[in-house]
Amino acid sequence: MNLTIIGVGLIGGSFAKDFKKLYPDSNIAGIDKNELNGKKALELGIIDEIGNYSTLATSDIVFVSIPVNSLTSELPKILDAVSEDAVVMDAGSTKKLICKTVDGHPKRRNFLACHPIAGTEFSGPSAAINGLYEGKTNIICEVEKTAFKLQEKALEIFQKMKMRIRYMNPDAHDKHIAYVSHLSHISSFMLGKTVIEKEKNERDIFDMAGSGFESTVRLAKSSPDMWTPIFEQNKENVIETLEEYIQNLETFKKLLINNDFENVYEEMNNTNRIKQILKGIPLTK
Amino acid sequence: MNLTIIGVGLIGGSFAKDFKKLYPDSNIAGIDKNELNGKKALELGIIDEIGNYSTLATSDIVFVSIPVNSLTSELPKILDAVSEDAVVMDAGSTKKLICKTVDGHPKRRNFLACHPIAGTEFSGPSAAINGLYEGKTNIICEVEKTAFKLQEKALEIFQKMKMRIRYMNPDAHDKHIAYVSHLSHISSFMLGKTVIEKEKNERDIFDMAGSGFESTVRLAKSSPDMWTPIFEQNKENVIETLEEYIQNLETFKKLLINNDFENVYEEMNNTNRIKQILKGIPLTK
Repeated sequence: MNLTIIGVGLIGGSFAKDFKKLYPDSNIAGIDKNELNGKKALELGIIDEIGNYSTLATSDIVFVSIPVNSLTSELPKILDAVSEDAVVMDAGSTKKLICKTVDGHPKRRNFLACHPIAGTEFSGPSAAINGLYEGKTNIICEVEKTAFKLQEKALEIFQKMKMRIRYMNPDAHDKHIAYVSHLSHISSFMLGKTVIEKEKNERDIFDMAGSGFESTVRLAKSSPDMWTPIFEQNKENVIETLEEYIQNLETFKKLLINNDFENVYEEMNNTNRIKQILKGIPLTK
Repeated sequence: MNLTIIGVGLIGGSFAKDFKKLYPDSNIAGIDKNELNGKKALELGIIDEIGNYSTLATSDIVFVSIPVNSLTSELPKILDAVSEDAVVMDAGSTKKLICKTVDGHPKRRNFLACHPIAGTEFSGPSAAINGLYEGKTNIICEVEKTAFKLQEKALEIFQKMKMRIRYMNPDAHDKHIAYVSHLSHISSFMLGKTVIEKEKNERDIFDMAGSGFESTVRLAKSSPDMWTPIFEQNKENVIETLEEYIQNLETFKKLLINNDFENVYEEMNNTNRIKQILKGIPLTK
């Protein structure tokens, strides 16, 4: 089986690693606009060769893991280049604009819109890890627009990688994911900013910060190249979540100002049930 | 050596565990206003016996790990009850009011104001773990007000537990800790609240949330009993950090509304240097 990974970073590289384990006889080509990434992936044995769009015609599977703004510009060209039997899947954190972009493309049935909820705060081919997708949810949008045989081909791989599949329409995806992923990134980035700004003497942060702080600002290490276009494409939903979050923070602040510690307690107590919710979330090892 | 732990939860229980390893011949008494906690700690072998204030006179070391509102009410009584040679240390997340409370107490020189920056989001004796304090910072306030011999006694234990010691005045402690700890807890609680409120169907959170979300809301599992009095005692500083945080979130929101994605990028890029800062933070295993 011929697999082409477009964008051989954490997401694409980890997919290639698991794929090779499942299909040792497969040939994996890698395409990356950053030549160094391609070379690094080759050196690390993540891919077997460097590919390009003109060789896409021989691929059975194309996994596109590039920033969401590049996805909208590249996907039509990728679909133009693949064969009738190839399945092209993406891993973008937004789905609405991506699905809209390929809608009406002559090879729309070759595309499967995916969002595997997996990753770490690191990036690049050297951040790729084995088993990244195990137990993780893969959200598939507009599945009915993909050729049935190609759905089957993709699902077999996902199942072998032990992903959990969930079907959703692109609007619902973008709305929900703003709450459980995009907002977390903004809260983390702005928390990091607030502390860095105040604590010019970084030695103080280093000495006094515990693992709780580390946990809440971990996502502030994420790549701005990846996240800027996500916020752009999902702007409306993200602004809505941000407004609600700010409103909740304002309410909490007012309770403090008014010495209403009974309700400060209640706010926290009511949110404690996040424990039960979190129990179900698979962690990246 | 006789050690008494007042409040045998995560913090006190973990201290007892490490202490017993270092001083196997020691006798550890436990006092907890919750009778079940004392029994549980005894059952788990964390303490050797249940103590009470009338037996405090025979203690060489008293470790007080109770919520900060209880600290201000109990510390004077504890100091009343201990011998002239005993050192009483606390583990409170605030220092200003606690230091003020014992100021002028006839046994002020028996007290060492401490804040070991260690913990997890869990609580109670069964959450106690070995090695919690290894590599962690212990902030000591007003060290000059503690008898020199008792400082020495305490420091020997901290060094054996491999804590890093940092001296600070109570005002500076409360100001900095608001940024690197207290604000993280509020951001996490309010993030949890925002998502729970929106996603009434919890199955959706469960399925779509990744490890990034888990990381940012982890602290929302923390105990309201512990955190309400912390926010109350450190109200002024906490409100200040909260105002700056909300301001930064508002700025980010405005950039999104104005389609100023160049500056959205810059905001994240500038905060990425948190990577270097986080490298120095020891993680709880």
